[in-house]
Amino acid sequence: MHVRNGPERLLRWERRMELPLFVGSAVFLGCYAVLVLAPHTSQGWRDLALAGVLLTWVVFLVDYLVRLALSGLGRHFPRKHWLDTVVLALPLLRPLRIVNAYSAVRRRHHGPRLSLYGRVMAYAGLSAVLLGFATALAVYQQERGAPGATIRTFGDSVWWAASAITTVGYGDVTPVTPWGRVFAVVLMACGVALLGAVTGSFSSWLIQLFGREDGAVEPGGPIDRDGRRPPGG
Amino acid sequence: MHVRNGPERLLRWERRMELPLFVGSAVFLGCYAVLVLAPHTSQGWRDLALAGVLLTWVVFLVDYLVRLALSGLGRHFPRKHWLDTVVLALPLLRPLRIVNAYSAVRRRHHGPRLSLYGRVMAYAGLSAVLLGFATALAVYQQERGAPGATIRTFGDSVWWAASAITTVGYGDVTPVTPWGRVFAVVLMACGVALLGAVTGSFSSWLIQLFGREDGAVEPGGPIDRDGRRPPGG
Amino acid sequence: MHVRNGPERLLRWERRMELPLFVGSAVFLGCYAVLVLAPHTSQGWRDLALAGVLLTWVVFLVDYLVRLALSGLGRHFPRKHWLDTVVLALPLLRPLRIVNAYSAVRRRHHGPRLSLYGRVMAYAGLSAVLLGFATALAVYQQERGAPGATIRTFGDSVWWAASAITTVGYGDVTPVTPWGRVFAVVLMACGVALLGAVTGSFSSWLIQLFGREDGAVEPGGPIDRDGRRPPGG
Amino acid sequence: MHVRNGPERLLRWERRMELPLFVGSAVFLGCYAVLVLAPHTSQGWRDLALAGVLLTWVVFLVDYLVRLALSGLGRHFPRKHWLDTVVLALPLLRPLRIVNAYSAVRRRHHGPRLSLYGRVMAYAGLSAVLLGFATALAVYQQERGAPGATIRTFGDSVWWAASAITTVGYGDVTPVTPWGRVFAVVLMACGVALLGAVTGSFSSWLIQLFGREDGAVEPGGPIDRDGRRPPGG
Repeated sequence: MHVRNGPERLLRWERRMELPLFVGSAVFLGCYAVLVLAPHTSQGWRDLALAGVLLTWVVFLVDYLVRLALSGLGRHFPRKHWLDTVVLALPLLRPLRIVNAYSAVRRRHHGPRLSLYGRVMAYAGLSAVLLGFATALAVYQQERGAPGATIRTFGDSVWWAASAITTVGYGDVTPVTPWGRVFAVVLMACGVALLGAVTGSFSSWLIQLFGREDGAVEPGGPIDRDGRRPPGG
Repeated sequence: MHVRNGPERLLRWERRMELPLFVGSAVFLGCYAVLVLAPHTSQGWRDLALAGVLLTWVVFLVDYLVRLALSGLGRHFPRKHWLDTVVLALPLLRPLRIVNAYSAVRRRHHGPRLSLYGRVMAYAGLSAVLLGFATALAVYQQERGAPGATIRTFGDSVWWAASAITTVGYGDVTPVTPWGRVFAVVLMACGVALLGAVTGSFSSWLIQLFGREDGAVEPGGPIDRDGRRPPGG
Repeated sequence: MHVRNGPERLLRWERRMELPLFVGSAVFLGCYAVLVLAPHTSQGWRDLALAGVLLTWVVFLVDYLVRLALSGLGRHFPRKHWLDTVVLALPLLRPLRIVNAYSAVRRRHHGPRLSLYGRVMAYAGLSAVLLGFATALAVYQQERGAPGATIRTFGDSVWWAASAITTVGYGDVTPVTPWGRVFAVVLMACGVALLGAVTGSFSSWLIQLFGREDGAVEPGGPIDRDGRRPPGG
Repeated sequence: MHVRNGPERLLRWERRMELPLFVGSAVFLGCYAVLVLAPHTSQGWRDLALAGVLLTWVVFLVDYLVRLALSGLGRHFPRKHWLDTVVLALPLLRPLRIVNAYSAVRRRHHGPRLSLYGRVMAYAGLSAVLLGFATALAVYQQERGAPGATIRTFGDSVWWAASAITTVGYGDVTPVTPWGRVFAVVLMACGVALLGAVTGSFSSWLIQLFGREDGAVEPGGPIDRDGRRPPGG
C-alpha cells in the first residue's frame, strides 16, 4: 500500500522541490564563489557564505532521503537515480541541477519550447558552462597558493577551464597541485561528454535543417528526424 | 492585415537583401583586415576602411529592424532569429552571413547542387574558415602590443586559430590579453560545434558511400541516408 | 565431424574460461603495477609479481591456442578474433578483457541491465579508464629514469594519461623516450576511439531521453532508439 | 557517339590503371622518404629517388588527362572528381590513393570483406596513418634546418604528427617554419575529418554490436543498422 502510493507522492514531492533545489543550486554556486573569490571580505560575509554552502548541502541531503523513502526502491535507488547520488557526493556537479530544475519549471509553464536538438544543445551547453565555472572556482582555490603554479588569477582559471572543456588544451596554464588535477580530470571527463552532446546535436540539427530545405524544393518530402511531422509535409 | 501581409513582404525583402548582405559581409571582413593588418597605410585608406566597417554595421542594423517590423513577431523576433541577433551584436561572426547569402544565391540560379552531407560539410567548413580568419584578425589586434605576448605576427595568429578551431591546441602561441582570450573562447566554442558538424557529416557521408558500394555488388539494395532514392535502386 | 562439433565445444570452453581470464587480467594489472610502482620492495614480492605476469601470459596463450584449435577456422582465426590476437601480443591492452569477462558474468546472472547506450558508455568508459591506467604504468616505467623527462612521478603519468585519453593534451608533461612515445601513440589511438564511443552514445542517449520526454507530453508517441518499445508507448 | 561510349571506356581505363596508380603511390611515398630521410646517400640513389618522384607525377597527370578526355565532362570534371584533382595538385595527399586502389583490387578478388563500419574504419584509419607519415616527412624536411626548431629528428616529426592527427596536440614539439605550419594545417584539417570518421564508425559499430547482443537474448529482434538483415533475425 505504502509502496503503491509511493510514485504519486514521489511525483508530488519532486514537483514541490523543483524550486527549492533550483534556488539551492544557485545559492551554492554563489556562496562558493564568494568564499573563493573574496577571501578578504569581512568575517561576517564569509560566515554567511559558509552557512549558505552548508544549508544547501542539508537541503539536497533531505531531498535525497525523502525521495529514497518515497520511491520504495530501497538500495536500488542510488543506482537508478545515479545523477542525484553523484550530485550529493560531489557538490561541484550541483550546477547540473540548475539546468534540470529550470527546464522543469519552463515545461510546466508551457513557455515556447525549443526543438529536440535545440533542447539537447541548450541543456548540454548550459551544463558545460556551469560545470566549467564551478571547476574554475575549485581549481583556483587549490592553485592560488601553490608554488610554481601557472594559474595565478581567477581569469587564468576560467581560461584554463574553457580550453579544457573544449578539449583544446593549450597547456600555457595548467593545474599543478594533486587536488587541482583531480578536479581537472572530472571536468575533462564530464566536459568531453557534454560537449560531444552539443556538437552531435548541432551536427544532427544542421543535417535536418539542410534536409528540410531539400524538401521545400524537391518533391521527395522533408526528412524529419525529431519524430514530428512538419505541418506541410 | 498588416501582420498577415507580413510574411510575403518579409520574403520579398529577404530575397532583395541577399546580395547587399553578402557584399556587406565581404566588405566588413575586407575593411577590418585593412584596419588590422595595414596600420601604417596613409590615413585616407584607413578612414575609408573605417567608413566601410561602420557602413556595413548600418546595413545590418537596417536589415534587422526592417525584418523585425515586417515579421510581426515583435519581441519574439530576437530569439526566433537568434543567428541574426548574434551577428548584429558580434560583428566578428558576420562572415557566417557570407556563406548563408552565397548558398541562397546559388540555390536561386539552379546551379549544380552538392549532396545533403556535402552541403553541410561545405557550409560548416567554410563558416569555420571565415570565423577563424576573422578571429585571427581580432586576436592579433589585441595581442600585438601586449607585453609577454607569444602571438607577434599575423602568421602566428592564423596558426593559433587553426590549432584552436581543430581543437588540437598546441599552446606554443596563445593569447595572453583578457580580450584576446575572450575572442579565443568564442572561436573555440563556435569552432568545436562547426568542426563537429564537418566531421559528423563526413563520417555519415563515408558510411553512405561505402553502403552504396555494397548495394552495387550485393542484391540487398543501396542504403540511401539522404532521403533520395538513387536512380537505379 | 570434429569441425561441426567445434562451435559447441568452443562455446563451452569460452564460458568455462570467462572467470579465469577475468582473474588473469586483474592479476596481470595488479602484478604489473607492483613491478612498476614498488621497485624497492623485497625481492620475494618482486619475484611473485613477475611470476604473476608470466603466468597470466601463459593462461592467455593457452586459451588462445585452444580456441584456435576448437574453432576450426585455422589461419582465419587471428583475423576473425583480432581483439584476442592483439591482446595476446600487447599485454597492455589486456585490461580490455576485464570489461569483456565482467559483462559476460553479469549477463549470465541476469542482473539488472543498463540500456543499450548505457552499456556502450559503461564498456567504452571502463575500457578507457583501465587502458589509461595500464599505459600510465608503462609510460612511467620508461620515463622515470630518462634525462630531461617531465613525467617524474606516477601522479604525473596518470595526469598525462588523463589529458591524452580525453584528447585535451596540455603538454606540460609529455613522454620523451622513444618507447614512452610509442605507448602514448597506442593510448591516443585507442583512447580517441573509445572516448568517441562514449560521447557518441551519451549524445544519442540524451537525444533519446529528451525525445521520450516529448512523447510523454505530446500525442506523437515516444521515440525509442534502442529497439525496445516502452511499456506505455 | 564519342561521349556515349565514354563511360564504358572510362571504366575499362580506370580498371586498367588501378595497379599502376597503386604502385605509383607507393613508389612516390618510398622515393620521397629516401629523399628526406637519407640526405647523405650517394648521389646516384638520390637521383633515382628524384626520378621516381617525377615519374609518379607524370603517371598521375597522364591518368588524370586521359580520364578527363574519356569522361566527356569537360570543365565539370575537376569538381566532380575533386579528390583526384586535389591529389594531382598536392602530391602529399597521394597516399590516399593507395588505400583506394588497394580496396578496389581486394573487391575484384572477392576476398573476405569487412562489415560496412569495419571498412569505413579501415579506410579512414589507414588514410590517416599514411597521410600522417607523408606529412611527418614533409614537415621534417622543412624544420630540420630551421633556427629555433623543436622538431629536430624524424622521430620528433612522427610524434608530432601522431599528436596532431588525434587532435591531442601536446605542443612540446611544433613546426615553426611557415611551410611546416601550412603542411600542419592541411594535416590537422584532413586528420580531424578522417579520425572523426573512424570514431563515428567505431561508435556506430559498438552500438550495433551491443544491440545485436540484445537481440540474441530478448525476443525483440536485433537492431541492424547497416542495411542487411542478419541470417537468424
